[in-house]
Amino acid sequence: MNSHAAYFALDLIGTFAFAISGAVAARQRRLDLFGILSIAFMVACGGGVLRDVCIGAIPPAGLSNWRYLAASMLASAVAIFAYAPVRRLRQPVLFFDAIGLGLFSVAGAQKALSFGHSAELAVLLGIVTAVGGGVMRDVVLSRLPAILDREIYATAALAGAGAQVLFSYAHWTQWWTPWVATLLCVALRLTSLRFGWRLPAFRGQRTSELPGDEQHDRGARNP
Amino acid sequence: MNSHAAYFALDLIGTFAFAISGAVAARQRRLDLFGILSIAFMVACGGGVLRDVCIGAIPPAGLSNWRYLAASMLASAVAIFAYAPVRRLRQPVLFFDAIGLGLFSVAGAQKALSFGHSAELAVLLGIVTAVGGGVMRDVVLSRLPAILDREIYATAALAGAGAQVLFSYAHWTQWWTPWVATLLCVALRLTSLRFGWRLPAFRGQRTSELPGDEQHDRGARNP
Amino acid sequence: MNSHAAYFALDLIGTFAFAISGAVAARQRRLDLFGILSIAFMVACGGGVLRDVCIGAIPPAGLSNWRYLAASMLASAVAIFAYAPVRRLRQPVLFFDAIGLGLFSVAGAQKALSFGHSAELAVLLGIVTAVGGGVMRDVVLSRLPAILDREIYATAALAGAGAQVLFSYAHWTQWWTPWVATLLCVALRLTSLRFGWRLPAFRGQRTSELPGDEQHDRGARNP
Repeated sequence: MNSHAAYFALDLIGTFAFAISGAVAARQRRLDLFGILSIAFMVACGGGVLRDVCIGAIPPAGLSNWRYLAASMLASAVAIFAYAPVRRLRQPVLFFDAIGLGLFSVAGAQKALSFGHSAELAVLLGIVTAVGGGVMRDVVLSRLPAILDREIYATAALAGAGAQVLFSYAHWTQWWTPWVATLLCVALRLTSLRFGWRLPAFRGQRTSELPGDEQHDRGARNP
Repeated sequence: MNSHAAYFALDLIGTFAFAISGAVAARQRRLDLFGILSIAFMVACGGGVLRDVCIGAIPPAGLSNWRYLAASMLASAVAIFAYAPVRRLRQPVLFFDAIGLGLFSVAGAQKALSFGHSAELAVLLGIVTAVGGGVMRDVVLSRLPAILDREIYATAALAGAGAQVLFSYAHWTQWWTPWVATLLCVALRLTSLRFGWRLPAFRGQRTSELPGDEQHDRGARNP
Repeated sequence: MNSHAAYFALDLIGTFAFAISGAVAARQRRLDLFGILSIAFMVACGGGVLRDVCIGAIPPAGLSNWRYLAASMLASAVAIFAYAPVRRLRQPVLFFDAIGLGLFSVAGAQKALSFGHSAELAVLLGIVTAVGGGVMRDVVLSRLPAILDREIYATAALAGAGAQVLFSYAHWTQWWTPWVATLLCVALRLTSLRFGWRLPAFRGQRTSELPGDEQHDRGARNP
């Protein structure tokens, strides 16, 4: 029960941190009140909705659980009325975002397992839960999704979801094993931020082997 | 029965108005025949498909009900063969689009309720039904979704869906209550267009507090 | 059984070809290891996941069948370690992409029919299966989806899915009828590539009839 209260508190913090990241991004684009709220809500609940649709958990918790909507509203209010302080909060925002990443990846994998699905699906949907909302935010705001960049972000979600699935398949399911998986993800994310770890990228020339490549390229990289 | 016939007529008009908006946007991008038809169909049925997937109404009506496809084909034909007159029709197109908005938001909320879901889900999915297709159109065409801008658009859908849910929870369900909710949404949309009402936006500076923000921004606002 | 082995081989080739197209596009954008793998996987399984969600085949095969993930990993490895040869392979890549298009459109339509859905849904979801992953790739990479351009691509998928549905409704279901439908799609795609066939487009001027059109247009066409 104590553990449940702690889980609820951290889930709320994770949801709120994700919603803040959406609300701030929306405000930077000078969206209106509704736009800020929409993007905050999308970041906080988008990944979970995708997961729930894929595992058959209808209706998706993100749409039927009022906490996600309330957290988005609160985050929008903060981004509107306390924008200046939030802008100075780079480190705290990144810290809570990392906690949200850890919690969502582990909780997403666990929910897929509890619906009786396979290890592969659980790992994939754990990642989707953690990063899906952020990808939606970037797609709607027409930015290259941040997770596709070289930071250790989705990789940390993979570590958290993978650890949770491993623990579950090893029948090593104490009350604290989800916290170990969450901690692994959060630590990996924060350490990589601290030391600037990045995944390798590869030199590629702009070519046009594939259908459509030569046309309408919106010039993300060639300004 | 008379009411059903009227509902069918207005639903068709709403579908067609949405499809016209998609077909015209696609033609402005100089898409081909298939592209015009695809975008018209996406605007007309996209929001409903999202709603049906989230409430478990499988298969989605937008994909299995031939009216949506037929309305999209007709709208594409109009956008191709009668483009010049349509271009002059700014007011009528906006008028029918407002009617589609009202009908889709109320019908979407009602369908979620009739599947036994909560008030929050019904309101959220009413909005999704009404604006989802337009958001898809803008994401695929790589524009900032129009609904995220400052016009009273999604807000009007919120009013329609919210009124319908309120009426339903108050057991105030006469044959004409959906029409009151629809009218509320349409009137709010048209009045805001007439008088140029807008939601407040907030001054935001481009900063980079959040992961990925500083990279790959596709420059929607800084040409 | 022989036919099943052949089907598996071709399905794998189609999946792999689609994954290669995603991995190469991601590498051209200089995405990192995870980004390349994500986009490859998205192209290979994205359309099938959309189809499975719409017909109620939960969990989606693309997420629970390890072959899609394995093919994406292999394709990513090829795009990373054998990039130079792949770049020279324009014709083979387009060839295998056409085979993937044919197989996915026919298999998608057949799966929708086998779940008891209508002919219209089967044709629509056959097209979605074949082109959905590529559209996701283009949306995430912020390009105008290649299929909306004038090439005969989605039209070929329509031909394949439509033929399969016609055969099924005519009770003309020999072991080889899916192959005829697949061949029809592949032949149409390859012939159109060979002779430069294109769908008609229509002259359109950039105007602003519809809500939001005048704002925030990200300038895909007006650099």
